[in-house]
Amino acid sequence: MSHETVYAELTDWIKRVHALGSVGELLAWDEQVNLPPGAAEQRASQLAALAGAQHAAASDPRIGAWLTALEGEAASLTADQKAVVKNARRDFDRATKLPEEFVREKAAQGSRGYHAWARAKAGDDFASYAPVLARNLELAKREAGYLDWAGREYDYMVDKHDPGMTAAVIGGLFDELKRDLVPLVKAIAASKLKPRSDALRGFPIDGQRAFLREVTQRLGFDYDRGRIDVSLHPFCTGTGSDVRMTTRFKEDEPLDSLFSAIHETGHGLYEQGLRADQLGTALGIHAGMAVHESQSRLWENQVARSRGFWRCFEPRLRELFPRQTQGVSSDELYLAINAVTPTLIRVDADEVTYNLHIILRFELEKKLFTGALAIGDLPAAWRESAEGLLGLTPPNDREGVLQDVHWSDGAFGYFPSYCLGNMLAAQLWYRALSLRPDLEKDFAGGDFTWLLGWLRENIHAQGRRFDALQLARRVTGEELSPRHLVRYLRERYGRLYGAEGEKGWVERAEG
Amino acid sequence: MSHETVYAELTDWIKRVHALGSVGELLAWDEQVNLPPGAAEQRASQLAALAGAQHAAASDPRIGAWLTALEGEAASLTADQKAVVKNARRDFDRATKLPEEFVREKAAQGSRGYHAWARAKAGDDFASYAPVLARNLELAKREAGYLDWAGREYDYMVDKHDPGMTAAVIGGLFDELKRDLVPLVKAIAASKLKPRSDALRGFPIDGQRAFLREVTQRLGFDYDRGRIDVSLHPFCTGTGSDVRMTTRFKEDEPLDSLFSAIHETGHGLYEQGLRADQLGTALGIHAGMAVHESQSRLWENQVARSRGFWRCFEPRLRELFPRQTQGVSSDELYLAINAVTPTLIRVDADEVTYNLHIILRFELEKKLFTGALAIGDLPAAWRESAEGLLGLTPPNDREGVLQDVHWSDGAFGYFPSYCLGNMLAAQLWYRALSLRPDLEKDFAGGDFTWLLGWLRENIHAQGRRFDALQLARRVTGEELSPRHLVRYLRERYGRLYGAEGEKGWVERAEG
Repeated sequence: MSHETVYAELTDWIKRVHALGSVGELLAWDEQVNLPPGAAEQRASQLAALAGAQHAAASDPRIGAWLTALEGEAASLTADQKAVVKNARRDFDRATKLPEEFVREKAAQGSRGYHAWARAKAGDDFASYAPVLARNLELAKREAGYLDWAGREYDYMVDKHDPGMTAAVIGGLFDELKRDLVPLVKAIAASKLKPRSDALRGFPIDGQRAFLREVTQRLGFDYDRGRIDVSLHPFCTGTGSDVRMTTRFKEDEPLDSLFSAIHETGHGLYEQGLRADQLGTALGIHAGMAVHESQSRLWENQVARSRGFWRCFEPRLRELFPRQTQGVSSDELYLAINAVTPTLIRVDADEVTYNLHIILRFELEKKLFTGALAIGDLPAAWRESAEGLLGLTPPNDREGVLQDVHWSDGAFGYFPSYCLGNMLAAQLWYRALSLRPDLEKDFAGGDFTWLLGWLRENIHAQGRRFDALQLARRVTGEELSPRHLVRYLRERYGRLYGAEGEKGWVERAEG
Repeated sequence: MSHETVYAELTDWIKRVHALGSVGELLAWDEQVNLPPGAAEQRASQLAALAGAQHAAASDPRIGAWLTALEGEAASLTADQKAVVKNARRDFDRATKLPEEFVREKAAQGSRGYHAWARAKAGDDFASYAPVLARNLELAKREAGYLDWAGREYDYMVDKHDPGMTAAVIGGLFDELKRDLVPLVKAIAASKLKPRSDALRGFPIDGQRAFLREVTQRLGFDYDRGRIDVSLHPFCTGTGSDVRMTTRFKEDEPLDSLFSAIHETGHGLYEQGLRADQLGTALGIHAGMAVHESQSRLWENQVARSRGFWRCFEPRLRELFPRQTQGVSSDELYLAINAVTPTLIRVDADEVTYNLHIILRFELEKKLFTGALAIGDLPAAWRESAEGLLGLTPPNDREGVLQDVHWSDGAFGYFPSYCLGNMLAAQLWYRALSLRPDLEKDFAGGDFTWLLGWLRENIHAQGRRFDALQLARRVTGEELSPRHLVRYLRERYGRLYGAEGEKGWVERAEG
């Protein structure tokens, strides 16, 4: 067989495996959005059956034969084909190198771990959770070993979510970011300007829903190829022409549903921008969690917290909710949108302090993997870091080391993606501004097409041909760096809160 | 291995195959209820990948080995185990005896056939559709041959939907039914009593939704283990603890959505009543389409068109829709609920004439399979039958032979189930009445628990241990017979329309 024929067979099969995976995602979406309360057990059986079928397809020996054949003819392959083969090898190794016994054990431990975490958090009882963490750490290391990452176990966990990324790279970036961010947060905390926490109250759900739909559609989300529903926690799943976002509505927190929906819209735009004929191959799959997060954060923060954006949408908000917005000035509204209040809880954090929450977790995770930190010392280490980074001391472990679900099922190495995504978002933003300085004027006129087109071409349509570091270099002409994020946070928040030696609200007059 | 171990392995695997099938059903539900308009092609890829995975699981050679082992030890098996093995053999043969090439050909032809039918119907052009029918007939016969039903091809098609049923049995039942039903329909058509077609207008959708939910919940549908949504055509899918019904709402046809939802509730109650720990084996799967239809029809017709039912729900209907029901008397309402108007179109037919539509199709299908009727002569034969059975002549083929989608993808042998279901429903009804004569008083008091409990025990929990004929015998103590359906239609409609030599509305005073 010619290598073109082998390549065609490989990609056909990969797309099929991916389609099975996307069915699993649909089941997970359905579970959050539609599942009758009594159907959990039956759904678990469906998921198990599907996982078995998908694993059988993903580990089909023919894939190995096709890959070996193509790897032997690398010189004849195009760059795109090489990227596809490389990613397929990665997936195939992960599907075949883990012993079945190990996979079962890990799945069972993940489920046990989740329940142990929920109990420990409810009872503020870290001691009962410590053995779970120890076991999860051990399983993670064994997993890295099976996949030939022995000695680089934490790098393996990082690479799993962000292909090509390493702990050393992240460490360098985070150290630099921390240096600039901690003083900025302190200055903002010292500002006399305080957002009114009760400014926006009593927004009827139907109106919120209509506004949110208008906004997300205007940003470019294609509702012919996606939808939005309600779930307990907002998320975005699906790909290509079937992207499903969720949000939640609270009458007294209209900004919560709006901004979480815009965040998910950023994820959704990325998935809708992948090449439809290549879904599942490296040409039609996202580049990793950091790049994914860069897209959600860019739309949520750089775009939707900007003056230009609100010049477009504030009048419509007041039109839809005249009574609720009557006593709220434009400045108060903008300050509510850009409220900064250090908190102990990551998921409640604003976009400035959020990064410090991530740095805290990354530093602890890394030490757990090297053995520099014992699990028993984790609560104290967490408290100390929280004081140093956030200036806040957790009164208990529930608001400290027990707050996140991630580690309970062994999802180490995931947290850094959030902050890397923020960095990349800011870096992309300034590159876009340098190409089109009037971007905010576009926004004020309700036009987001240039930005989306630019992201489509430079990020979305690239799929996984490049990793996050390569993408940053190619699209912005320089290495990934935290300085753009720092600049952005200073320009937006430093000025707003008068925390950079300037008067607060300066930008208001110019804006 | 002991036969108990083999049996356990077999049933575990069957449940897994069934779970994969139920994922396919969920995808189909989602396609009707949620799918973004642009996602059809992507969904087709998902369905194809899933079908491939399910077929691989359903034709796994281990199933054959387990079955052969168990069939060799039949003497050691319980009656339940025998039923499970028998049904598993049936499924396994269907999964393995059809050549892959044939399955692909049939799938492609099914899709082509659907579009050819849609075009032919739109253009009232039977000639263009005739070759499709010829090809579908040929494929159906080939399929029967592969599964060792050569010479009994139409029986194969019937058995496919209703295990254990034959064309000869149906022919005998339908002849008897026809003899009594044709004169009854003529007498009703001659009645001076005519339902007001414009009695119920302008029912807001929200109110309809609330009423429908109350009614279906009261009938026993468990919304913790199911849900109802909106789709273009009502249907019910899913099983066990995740049963999903759909309906549609029209402001000027409140009875349409209500009765279609009650019909689907009948299907849903059956599926919710299957044994949860046996889903997919013969102990936890429905007995066939006729029995399924008996459940939907029993609740829709015997129960929900009864005086007792409306004694309970009429006050609530008037409470929810005071303005809309103001000028409508109780008698007019009841007549609207039990309107009989012969029509050429099966899906618009009332419950009396519906059976004649089915008999017409059965007789033609049977002749097509024996060769007694040529495809070219089908339109004329249809017209002739419509005149004889319904007293109506189709002015064109669109309202005649081209009206149904079923034959376009080769679904022969399906139609009889509808009428067999009506027969079984009436037979079950009178059996229930003989055990609990005050059943309608229960209904008037809003209590449907006795009837549901009786069906649960005698039908639902039986799964596929017995076929439709065996079930009829076991539950009612006699062979399946059309006389109960005739009695029921006479008692309800004959009296109502004064078509049985009695005055119309006689039952009104008593009922």
